[in-house]
Amino acid sequence: VGKNRPIVIRGTPVGGEGTPLVCTPLVGRTADDVLGELRNILGKQPDAIEWRADFFSGLGDTDEVLALCSTLAGAAAGIPIIFTIRSTREGGQPIPLADEQVTALCVAVCRSRTMGLIDFEISAPRAGLEKVRAAARETDTRLILSYHNFSETPDGPALDAKFAEGRDLGADVVKIAVMPRSVDDVLVLLSATSRAHQSLGLPLITMSMGGYGALTRVAGWMFGSSLTFAVGQASSAPGQLPVDDLRRVVKILSDALGK
Amino acid sequence: VGKNRPIVIRGTPVGGEGTPLVCTPLVGRTADDVLGELRNILGKQPDAIEWRADFFSGLGDTDEVLALCSTLAGAAAGIPIIFTIRSTREGGQPIPLADEQVTALCVAVCRSRTMGLIDFEISAPRAGLEKVRAAARETDTRLILSYHNFSETPDGPALDAKFAEGRDLGADVVKIAVMPRSVDDVLVLLSATSRAHQSLGLPLITMSMGGYGALTRVAGWMFGSSLTFAVGQASSAPGQLPVDDLRRVVKILSDALGK
Repeated sequence: VGKNRPIVIRGTPVGGEGTPLVCTPLVGRTADDVLGELRNILGKQPDAIEWRADFFSGLGDTDEVLALCSTLAGAAAGIPIIFTIRSTREGGQPIPLADEQVTALCVAVCRSRTMGLIDFEISAPRAGLEKVRAAARETDTRLILSYHNFSETPDGPALDAKFAEGRDLGADVVKIAVMPRSVDDVLVLLSATSRAHQSLGLPLITMSMGGYGALTRVAGWMFGSSLTFAVGQASSAPGQLPVDDLRRVVKILSDALGK
Repeated sequence: VGKNRPIVIRGTPVGGEGTPLVCTPLVGRTADDVLGELRNILGKQPDAIEWRADFFSGLGDTDEVLALCSTLAGAAAGIPIIFTIRSTREGGQPIPLADEQVTALCVAVCRSRTMGLIDFEISAPRAGLEKVRAAARETDTRLILSYHNFSETPDGPALDAKFAEGRDLGADVVKIAVMPRSVDDVLVLLSATSRAHQSLGLPLITMSMGGYGALTRVAGWMFGSSLTFAVGQASSAPGQLPVDDLRRVVKILSDALGK
């Protein structure tokens, strides 16, 4: 088993040295909130930032979104940002946009070339996904195709199929986040991550959520996950650890591997 | 899945609150070395101590061993001590005693009632094991029946059989320590631990060794392991973490579970 794979953003490989990229989410409602969160988080030196735009009250106004993308990119000073509109189907906030409008906004965000990565759900309508994929390729934006399940952990074969589906749909990175109902479900997710790492040839982002899942946030990189989410100012999903705690555990496990 | 089980030592349950007992090994060659190690380690407040008597140069002299048992028990001031003569077959040091002499010494140590627990290998000759088991019961010393494999991780069914063998031979605690050849082997050990936790009805001590295995030393308790070994002064097996690092990770994972 090799190390986890780097995510290449406009020619620059990020991460992939074994330890995972630590990504902190921005979940503010107003532009000022989001920018304030980013500024606070920069002190923790995250490796990546996720703007959870479904939390943003200005989401209905494309110009406002693009302006904030540009401001955030400037303020992040080279730290790659993931642009994400999480659907309510997969744990996101209610938004004023229909699927086609989400697609159009994601295409516009790609074309702005401000975001290093864009998250789109595997379960989204296929036509929209193809448009976003085309825009991402055209603009060299990395496409994360994602699957979230907040109620359970599908079994190993179902997770294998989900990883393969993400790859077949043209993902640059496949992300899977699931809820464990037992500690054994945590092993199901880690085991599927390891298989996908060996078979997919793509960087992966995987995690179990909730209390049991914290283990995957600190150790998923050993099984092939390239990025892990940690709390900067506010968490965006259950089980996220503070950045400092997460980094401390990763370092202890990583030092043990180096011995 | 419930919490890991307490180990009951002369009527007092130790551990079992979820987080694991942290046990530090004593590996000195002379009585002074061993006692010095113990005194140094006490500052780290270990929950248990293992005296790896196979490292002790005086092992051939029963009186010397019993005298040191008594001194250690006094100095440990209530912290339970595991008395262990690890065989060379399972990663221990060369010793001047034949199997029958090891058995006789272990029986004598039980009868001294100085040690809370005694480790004996599942693979030891059966007649010796029965004598030690009888002496342990008679003196209310907890019997850890153990299996170590420093070259590989047997598959799930083989581990299940090893746990059952330990129980069938009369263990109070079953210990399994194996070497992973891949990260996937770490999942094999954790998964077998979880099954044994649910089926055996006994406290367990399990770990993967080496760099990958460090994960099991910090997280095995989530799957049912009641005790984990950490380095006090010197390690006794590959992959052991310093006490403080181990406790820090356990606390972070434990806090996440409590949320």
